[in-house]
Amino acid sequence: MNTLIQQAHHQIDFSNGSIAGKKVLTSAKRLKDMVGIFEDKGSFAIMDTNQIVYSVQAYLPVEEGKEGGLFYGKTTIEPGKVGDEYFMTLGHFHRNMDRAEFYWGIQGKGILLFMDEDRKCRAEEMKPGSLHYIPGKIGHRTINTGSTPLHFGACWPSDAGHNYEEILQNGFPVRVREIDGQPQIISVS
Amino acid sequence: MNTLIQQAHHQIDFSNGSIAGKKVLTSAKRLKDMVGIFEDKGSFAIMDTNQIVYSVQAYLPVEEGKEGGLFYGKTTIEPGKVGDEYFMTLGHFHRNMDRAEFYWGIQGKGILLFMDEDRKCRAEEMKPGSLHYIPGKIGHRTINTGSTPLHFGACWPSDAGHNYEEILQNGFPVRVREIDGQPQIISVS
Repeated sequence: MNTLIQQAHHQIDFSNGSIAGKKVLTSAKRLKDMVGIFEDKGSFAIMDTNQIVYSVQAYLPVEEGKEGGLFYGKTTIEPGKVGDEYFMTLGHFHRNMDRAEFYWGIQGKGILLFMDEDRKCRAEEMKPGSLHYIPGKIGHRTINTGSTPLHFGACWPSDAGHNYEEILQNGFPVRVREIDGQPQIISVS
Repeated sequence: MNTLIQQAHHQIDFSNGSIAGKKVLTSAKRLKDMVGIFEDKGSFAIMDTNQIVYSVQAYLPVEEGKEGGLFYGKTTIEPGKVGDEYFMTLGHFHRNMDRAEFYWGIQGKGILLFMDEDRKCRAEEMKPGSLHYIPGKIGHRTINTGSTPLHFGACWPSDAGHNYEEILQNGFPVRVREIDGQPQIISVS
């Protein structure tokens, strides 16, 4: 008896990282889901808050919380700013603190912010092919500093989980602003 | 004080998946490292056994065995056959049995073989953009069925480890052969 050769169950579109197949969840964050995140409240107040800031696809082959499994995802951050502050993700730590994650730039340009438990930050440029290791215990947020969508891929353990609360409550100690046409990372006073 | 924007420490070449940066290990398996793996001993005996069958790059940001970390890699299988049996990897289970892995096709064409603990096999076609989830407890081997190098990427937990012995001793219950110009998966009698 010969074994059949099946098509792969999932397919990645290399142009933007999008994933086709079963068990792929899609979600979006709109401006109205990010009240209080951007500094410039005046600019925020006059924007269409129904617009999407970023969207996520996640292929979850096993249940969340399972030890030893992996998830694979893609995030797209739209180009845009609130005042001079670029569109970005909420950012998170992992619930299971020591779990790491890989990000890789696919299309567009941006910045990946890392924050340790002492709120010390560093930043790496994200661009097509950039590969970023996010160790455990490191909060991470991604910012689109370009004029086109920023697409990036991710792989993380299925028992990592997400802790958004820490960053929702305390934010990052820096903001990424466009100053003289260039992205700059400015400490929050 | 403003935060500097650093270049990413690692860069992927999307044309073949190769990874540039520190802590990237490279290794190669030559035919002479795979004695007894291919069935046709007569054909093997007259081949240049110094030729490379496959090579691996692995970015190991943390030490092997660490819980919660991840590794990121790329494998290239050269085109070739021993008799009518295509060049392939040795194949392995994970030492830490329940650890999963993602593979994704980058360039070239091939077959990914999965084998469960009861030696039951299935096969998925690998091609650019194909995404494959390899659950824990599943042995896996990749075969280049094309006429150009097969490049594929991988992400796996840093505490997965490799168990090559099981497959070195008992092989797979199937072989992938070229028959009438097409790959076929044939049960070992």
